[in-house]
Amino acid sequence: MPAKPLRKLTPLGLAQVVFLDDGFLGQRIRTNRNVTLPIAYRRCKETGRIDAFRMDWKPPMPNPPHKFWDSDVAKWVEAAAYDLATHPQSERRKRLDAVVNLIASAQQSDGYLNVHYTIVEPEKRWTNVRDNHELYCAGHLMEAAVAHYRTTGSRKMLDVLGRYADHIASVFGRGEGQKRGYCGHPEIELALVKMYRATGERKYLDLAKYLVDERGQQPHFYDAEAAARGEDPRADSPQCWQSLQAHKPVREQNEVVGHAVRAMYLHSGMADVAMETGDAGLMAACRKLWDNVATRKMYITGGVGSHNTGEAMGANYELPNETAYAETCASIGLVLFARRMLEAHADAKYADVIERALYNGILSGVSLSGDKFFYSNPLAVNGCYKPEGRRHQDVRQEWFNVSCCPTNVIRLLASLGEYVYSTADNALYVHLYASGTATTELAGRTVSLKQQTDYPWDGQVALTVRVDRPGAFSLMLRIPAWCRRYKLTVNGKGFAAPVARGYARITRKWSDGDQVRLVLEMPVERVVANPAVPDNVGKVALQRGPIVYCLEQCDHAAPVPSISLPDKAKLTARRVRLLGGCVVIEGAATAVSPADWKGNLYRPYREVQTKKIRFRAVPYSLWANRRPGAMTVWLARQ
Amino acid sequence: MPAKPLRKLTPLGLAQVVFLDDGFLGQRIRTNRNVTLPIAYRRCKETGRIDAFRMDWKPPMPNPPHKFWDSDVAKWVEAAAYDLATHPQSERRKRLDAVVNLIASAQQSDGYLNVHYTIVEPEKRWTNVRDNHELYCAGHLMEAAVAHYRTTGSRKMLDVLGRYADHIASVFGRGEGQKRGYCGHPEIELALVKMYRATGERKYLDLAKYLVDERGQQPHFYDAEAAARGEDPRADSPQCWQSLQAHKPVREQNEVVGHAVRAMYLHSGMADVAMETGDAGLMAACRKLWDNVATRKMYITGGVGSHNTGEAMGANYELPNETAYAETCASIGLVLFARRMLEAHADAKYADVIERALYNGILSGVSLSGDKFFYSNPLAVNGCYKPEGRRHQDVRQEWFNVSCCPTNVIRLLASLGEYVYSTADNALYVHLYASGTATTELAGRTVSLKQQTDYPWDGQVALTVRVDRPGAFSLMLRIPAWCRRYKLTVNGKGFAAPVARGYARITRKWSDGDQVRLVLEMPVERVVANPAVPDNVGKVALQRGPIVYCLEQCDHAAPVPSISLPDKAKLTARRVRLLGGCVVIEGAATAVSPADWKGNLYRPYREVQTKKIRFRAVPYSLWANRRPGAMTVWLARQ
Repeated sequence: MPAKPLRKLTPLGLAQVVFLDDGFLGQRIRTNRNVTLPIAYRRCKETGRIDAFRMDWKPPMPNPPHKFWDSDVAKWVEAAAYDLATHPQSERRKRLDAVVNLIASAQQSDGYLNVHYTIVEPEKRWTNVRDNHELYCAGHLMEAAVAHYRTTGSRKMLDVLGRYADHIASVFGRGEGQKRGYCGHPEIELALVKMYRATGERKYLDLAKYLVDERGQQPHFYDAEAAARGEDPRADSPQCWQSLQAHKPVREQNEVVGHAVRAMYLHSGMADVAMETGDAGLMAACRKLWDNVATRKMYITGGVGSHNTGEAMGANYELPNETAYAETCASIGLVLFARRMLEAHADAKYADVIERALYNGILSGVSLSGDKFFYSNPLAVNGCYKPEGRRHQDVRQEWFNVSCCPTNVIRLLASLGEYVYSTADNALYVHLYASGTATTELAGRTVSLKQQTDYPWDGQVALTVRVDRPGAFSLMLRIPAWCRRYKLTVNGKGFAAPVARGYARITRKWSDGDQVRLVLEMPVERVVANPAVPDNVGKVALQRGPIVYCLEQCDHAAPVPSISLPDKAKLTARRVRLLGGCVVIEGAATAVSPADWKGNLYRPYREVQTKKIRFRAVPYSLWANRRPGAMTVWLARQ
Repeated sequence: MPAKPLRKLTPLGLAQVVFLDDGFLGQRIRTNRNVTLPIAYRRCKETGRIDAFRMDWKPPMPNPPHKFWDSDVAKWVEAAAYDLATHPQSERRKRLDAVVNLIASAQQSDGYLNVHYTIVEPEKRWTNVRDNHELYCAGHLMEAAVAHYRTTGSRKMLDVLGRYADHIASVFGRGEGQKRGYCGHPEIELALVKMYRATGERKYLDLAKYLVDERGQQPHFYDAEAAARGEDPRADSPQCWQSLQAHKPVREQNEVVGHAVRAMYLHSGMADVAMETGDAGLMAACRKLWDNVATRKMYITGGVGSHNTGEAMGANYELPNETAYAETCASIGLVLFARRMLEAHADAKYADVIERALYNGILSGVSLSGDKFFYSNPLAVNGCYKPEGRRHQDVRQEWFNVSCCPTNVIRLLASLGEYVYSTADNALYVHLYASGTATTELAGRTVSLKQQTDYPWDGQVALTVRVDRPGAFSLMLRIPAWCRRYKLTVNGKGFAAPVARGYARITRKWSDGDQVRLVLEMPVERVVANPAVPDNVGKVALQRGPIVYCLEQCDHAAPVPSISLPDKAKLTARRVRLLGGCVVIEGAATAVSPADWKGNLYRPYREVQTKKIRFRAVPYSLWANRRPGAMTVWLARQ
């Protein structure tokens, strides 16, 4: 992809990036390949999602294909295609192509392609784009088609979705007889930009731009659409619109509101459209929205979405811990948004959020074994509650009826190669540190970079530069915001690299085999939240490098909610075999003693009896891999 | 009422107890009479609830009478009748009798009396007692009938409800062709015991006993009933049963679970049946349930019900503050349960809870002006949130579609006279301290007691005993559990009264005009919660006498959630004109300073900058009478 006026970076392709299997990310990607992807296929098969594309359901058969089933299959196709880029295997390719062919066979003669609306409610096609995920499913199918095309070179699915996109463009738009609609669940916007990039067909970008620009305009399409269904305009329309980010035109929005996943997808699509069209005003709106979420509405884990009700963003600084929704999909959406902002601005602050979300609130969404999932990722669970009272499960589930999260995890993990490196002009950027190799063309030169590191457990990164012939270019190494001191050497000698927008720039003439060594100091940090966050006043969290920690009940005799951390307590980081190998943080803490209460619920304060205990904090992303029980990220300071 | 084996106390009747209009309770009762009762009538009228009893609604007219409308009208009748006991007025009596006559006119020839099921869904009568409040409405009508009879002497409504009860007894029971059902929303159990007490008809007690005993038996009636409706037994039946306290026979229940109001009403009805039948096993179950709620599941405000979802009890010790549901009705239900346990056991621990709930979590449910209401009574509101994010309203509402809470408040306040005094053998019990007078017969003697006090703002209570002739009896004065030191004098001389079960017993020969003076020391107390309550670890609440305090945003420049209270800070109580005249607590506190954050959401902890501030705490029951904003009962200790 050529650089555009509003696009500073071009990511390396998946085939250009190899993760070492035993690195931290590499392990998770391998599990994703060997366990989670097959499970996702099996669940889609067992639940009828895949076979629904055979279009042979008829009433009154049980298990009618649901409105959003198509999207789950599409996300499996997308993930499976990504994975093939570095791990081609004929069996996997066969399974993938079989599903692709099945999907293609479901396309109608006019290009339409949606199982539910073709065989369950054919008379209702395009009558409720506000609520019913029809364009959302189309978007996921397009993303799958682009992924399949990019990895396999086959245009089969891409052409099918091109025809579907053409059909959609004939139905929606500002022309006579067209619906001035847009999807209640954004997704197709970013997907159409992918279609544009894959095919070069401007019409897909135009449709994406229309969908972005039309959103939230008055008179409101969703009222007109409701009236056309014979429904009264709802008294709660404005709230409904806001939940769908359709309460005002997107350029006028400066607060991330409503359904968290929808918000993240919409803002990602906005950034895509802005980048491709050079629309600085739209990009400025994206920056405002970004600043809002990153400085007002993001959990320390990279979770977003404070409310179970409506799966919604909270107000500014509203970040309750135990009732946090922080849907896995929403953190993935945040990463999608961050990636686009990073490409547009080449500013490490976006990569910092990618790292925060990926290493914490996203990986927490899937078990180490790869076969169990969280839909929401709370920052505290008071495990003393019995099932009736439990507000959040502390046990990952095998699957969900609404299975957006597992299928989102598989496609993110399978596409991680696109997040590590990118290029710009005569520079190679390193955004994430992970053992493996990357190869790219840089100003007519073949450059390969080998990373050796135990990151995120250790801050030392050894980089070996391979070039087919010596030459000058810049190696841009991200200095994470969490890092306060680092050392950089080239071939063993200190290198004074200027740092701008979070990247240390090493500009020199590189020879084959040059060695770069970056040492990021990684002490245990106590982190506090802005006091405007009511739920974290008086509390502290533990972080080391990019990893946010938590206390789990199974490591403690005292109830986790009763533990507080003295400000002066020494904290020790230690590498252990636990949980697949990780660094834990240990030290002395204080637990309120439950003695002396005689069954009373309240009593006058004299003093609160406490006892000293040893505590152990484990990475938040690895919690709930042992026994169920209480957990907390934030501890009372003492 | 004669004393029974399991009933130790007999409350004074409403006509025997007069509150002084300018006392704390007297003021609220007067507002209830002059403002809230007329408003409740008007709302019931405006919304069609009253005129629904004309039975002239026909489809497709708008606003069909709802399944639980009858109960709102019944609760107004009950409240209006109670109020007439001390304040007879011909206009009010006319309005009351008109409504009573209207209700009576709606009775069917077979005795049935339910507006919705007579004119909206006549074919569905008694087909879903699990969900549809049919017996619940009957119960409220019975309570209204008994109140009307007791105050006015008219048997009009009592006889109508007697016929309805007879009809119900013919439909439900263990006889052939009868339904072995019971209501999903308990209420009729305690109402039938009132019918029994008012009429002396044992059959009503028998029906109450049947309903209590049948609950939760297997095979489960609610499954049979669902099957009869052609519905599949639900997979979630056990959870559903638990939410209705029908998961097991009531004698086997030892944890208060499910819908909080239903639980309180059921357990009240159980206590009633146990008292009247002398069923010690049933009373033992009541004690277990009481201990559970009072020592595991009760907010410091006397609120019960931790969950918005299902309006439900939480698990043991699950008492979240901001998301507390603590429905006004549930606290009223707790008072109903406590009153019965008090009558059964003559133990002040039950009166302590009546006082706690009444002075805090119930009075908070209605504005000082008497015309605005809270449905739920959270213990914290983080007022920095804008409406989208606000999890709890900090603004009372004029009415609700589901208007159980306002109509419950009016009947409780109008019946408060029954909660202050009771008699046993040769003893007069004083449970609550409030200016006013009481008159009763005690062992053939007319005894009158005059209370003069500024309680709850001041702990001094002056009691004047009037007797028609001198004689010996015991005056039993409750020493509240919150009180650690008190002084008692009789005619100016110290009196060493033995204290048992929370009552100081003054046994002597009384002469007309004897003066008793009780001085309850009422310092400001810091209160802590059992450390098993995760949400209150490290926190402290302020209480003075029975009054629980809170901080409101409108009294503070610093955000209320950022305020913490040093353990050593001196606390001062001061009488002010604010909020109708009350005692506020003031002192020095600490607020986290929001400076120096530069818009960041998280940062490494160095030190948290704080500033000293003055704080003012106001009675929780009086919050949200000024401007909306943040509020908290529990403060971080420092």
